[in-house]
Amino acid sequence: MKKFVSALVAATVVLGATPAMAQFAKAEDAVKYRQSAFFIMAQNFGRVAAMAQGKAPFDAKVAAESAAVAETMSKLPWAGFVAGSESAGSTKAKAEIWTNAAHFKEGADKMQAEMTKFSAAAKTGNLDNIKAALPGVGGTCKGCHDDFRAK
Amino acid sequence: MKKFVSALVAATVVLGATPAMAQFAKAEDAVKYRQSAFFIMAQNFGRVAAMAQGKAPFDAKVAAESAAVAETMSKLPWAGFVAGSESAGSTKAKAEIWTNAAHFKEGADKMQAEMTKFSAAAKTGNLDNIKAALPGVGGTCKGCHDDFRAK
Repeated sequence: MKKFVSALVAATVVLGATPAMAQFAKAEDAVKYRQSAFFIMAQNFGRVAAMAQGKAPFDAKVAAESAAVAETMSKLPWAGFVAGSESAGSTKAKAEIWTNAAHFKEGADKMQAEMTKFSAAAKTGNLDNIKAALPGVGGTCKGCHDDFRAK
Repeated sequence: MKKFVSALVAATVVLGATPAMAQFAKAEDAVKYRQSAFFIMAQNFGRVAAMAQGKAPFDAKVAAESAAVAETMSKLPWAGFVAGSESAGSTKAKAEIWTNAAHFKEGADKMQAEMTKFSAAAKTGNLDNIKAALPGVGGTCKGCHDDFRAK
């Protein structure tokens, strides 16, 4: 067991001296981290969005749980956009994320706020509330993708 | 925006008729989902484990937050082990996950329970509590990897 945990620790502890990278052992991990968080978020948000659009049967319990996971995930990707990870691994991240960091942060904050509203709407168990909160999230997704994500 | 959400919904709504796959549009997504959840969990758990092992400076706030994320993530991967995803994409999942599902579920439940204890320990802000909870998690990780994950 000790060996196992040690291997994991070695994979996550910083060996370099870049403070901004402190959370990740290597730039590729930072990219994988943000992509993993976005993927899980999109899967969970998409499941609820499908219900709101009448493309999947409405299940209040699943909707509330999935939206809550999407809300949690919305807070995670940003740690992965560290300096030094601009072009690591396979990424669609545009340079503007780092050259226009204030604008990027604004979009990231907006998205988290909208996802929190969306999750709160899903907790009510009322499909109309979910429908009303949907465009807010969709708009912030699209806004950032247009500006900061390569096609 | 509508177009954007529709594309996302199309990517998550089930087109097939396999009830067990209901959560994912395709088997590759199920594999990516479980791998993403494990990756984020390992990154966050590893960060706290490094503190417990004296390989990184102890930061009580970061430890509590990271352990909480690891706890949330520990609940997610299991939805991705759906029938039909046994050999989809790039996976190290052994057939035993599906042929010995009861044993796999037992390990999965144990891991979540240990991660919950670990997160509770991290919330106390006491490094000794975290150290005490560490082997429990490490043991359950290793147990499942030995039995259910190809080298």
